[in-house]
Amino acid sequence: METPGLRHAFFVSDRTGITAEMLGHSLLAQFEGVQFKETTLPFVDSVERANEAVRQINEVARDGLRPLVFSTLVDTEVSAVIAKSNGLYLDCFQVFISPMEQELGVSHSHEIGRSHRVRNTNEYHSRIEAVNFCLAHDDGVSTKELHEADVILVGVSRSGKTPTCLYLGLQYGIRAANYPLIPEDFQDMKLPARLNKYRRKLFGLTIQAPRLAHIRNERRPNSRYAQLDNCQYEIDRAEMLMREEGIPFLDATNRSIEELAATIVHQGQLHRQSF
Amino acid sequence: METPGLRHAFFVSDRTGITAEMLGHSLLAQFEGVQFKETTLPFVDSVERANEAVRQINEVARDGLRPLVFSTLVDTEVSAVIAKSNGLYLDCFQVFISPMEQELGVSHSHEIGRSHRVRNTNEYHSRIEAVNFCLAHDDGVSTKELHEADVILVGVSRSGKTPTCLYLGLQYGIRAANYPLIPEDFQDMKLPARLNKYRRKLFGLTIQAPRLAHIRNERRPNSRYAQLDNCQYEIDRAEMLMREEGIPFLDATNRSIEELAATIVHQGQLHRQSF
Repeated sequence: METPGLRHAFFVSDRTGITAEMLGHSLLAQFEGVQFKETTLPFVDSVERANEAVRQINEVARDGLRPLVFSTLVDTEVSAVIAKSNGLYLDCFQVFISPMEQELGVSHSHEIGRSHRVRNTNEYHSRIEAVNFCLAHDDGVSTKELHEADVILVGVSRSGKTPTCLYLGLQYGIRAANYPLIPEDFQDMKLPARLNKYRRKLFGLTIQAPRLAHIRNERRPNSRYAQLDNCQYEIDRAEMLMREEGIPFLDATNRSIEELAATIVHQGQLHRQSF
Repeated sequence: METPGLRHAFFVSDRTGITAEMLGHSLLAQFEGVQFKETTLPFVDSVERANEAVRQINEVARDGLRPLVFSTLVDTEVSAVIAKSNGLYLDCFQVFISPMEQELGVSHSHEIGRSHRVRNTNEYHSRIEAVNFCLAHDDGVSTKELHEADVILVGVSRSGKTPTCLYLGLQYGIRAANYPLIPEDFQDMKLPARLNKYRRKLFGLTIQAPRLAHIRNERRPNSRYAQLDNCQYEIDRAEMLMREEGIPFLDATNRSIEELAATIVHQGQLHRQSF
């Protein structure tokens, strides 16, 4: 039995489905009162697979409300099959092709799988290298190549530096190092000496104390490290230090990793290697 | 001076711009003969910022061909400003809202920034935890929590396991460990003993020898490790071992990180924690 009022949404793609998911997901997020169940149908790259997808969509349509079907299919034959399902077909790809063809004066290639293909070995390579750089320069473990960093994230332990650095590497090909601000730094209210010459590359993350205490408690339960008052102290001092040193910083508490990374790229005017 | 025939494309968003970039980028990839210069204008969340964006778009339009403008703007007032620029306006958001409203019988919230907001703390948390898990179980460094892994990637050194694991964590909230297959494993053609009880979680990556030799050479120039014949030997043995052990595997050579990750989720029927 279906939950009454539950609405299914399908993301149909001939490749990974990531684009369809992201766009569809932000559209669904506009309808707060509705409960959605989301299903991605990736690699729908033949009429046969399209028929199988239609079977899945129609099964849901039979038992409940009409599902929403977001599609980024490139092949017109394949998408025509999906368009005939019993869902509400929302074409997020073909619909733009025709005005683009008109504007550009050329036909599109109809070739699927072009979006995430390794189009450019250099670009791909720079993402992998950026990830390796992040890993080698995580949590201040190495400072020997900090001059090669595009950005160095600073902040108290567990403020979200590592996942943000990794996202900067994976999504943007940016070499992001991170360096923790620790109680010793707060005693003399000075930046770690090693960071002094990279001042212009620094970007800070901060976080609200209750959230930080929660995160730290999972890691080291009942430790001084995780206590709320200690978290609050570290955060206050870290923010004061970053203000004094003129380091721009963001509050990570209510921001997603994507948002933190995109904001750092934007505000820091970083040169991205990858789209 | 503009390069003749160069076409500018703008991705305009009220938040990160990642969705607009991904969709716009796959659309542009359909027009192989055209050379594009891509610019993301993120955080366009007011009429004032929209006017600034229009100024940038019109500057390009004045000096060359009409730019393409992909927009995922939620606010109708803001998007109306962009729509009046001298670019070809391609609305990748508003255009879907009206049929969705009709289908769902409710109005959308008009609230921006809903897509990447930390909607669900649990989901966010699971992504961060998955990344931490990847880092703790990278390159076989720890095997103590392999029972908690959703998937364990195996393959020769530098076949792309680490970035794929990290992407699985960041994008899908999947706990992905990785374990290298090393020359010792090829001598007796057996899986590392520690992996035996997790056989059903294993997924392999392979790579073509010239690419692997190139990657390894950057890491350890002129080493035996990086020599083409050694790479070919390791790859042949690893593939043979994976076939014998019934481990599914993918060739990473011509696949993007996104594609590898999405294929592993799909083929492995992994339960994702995050959209």
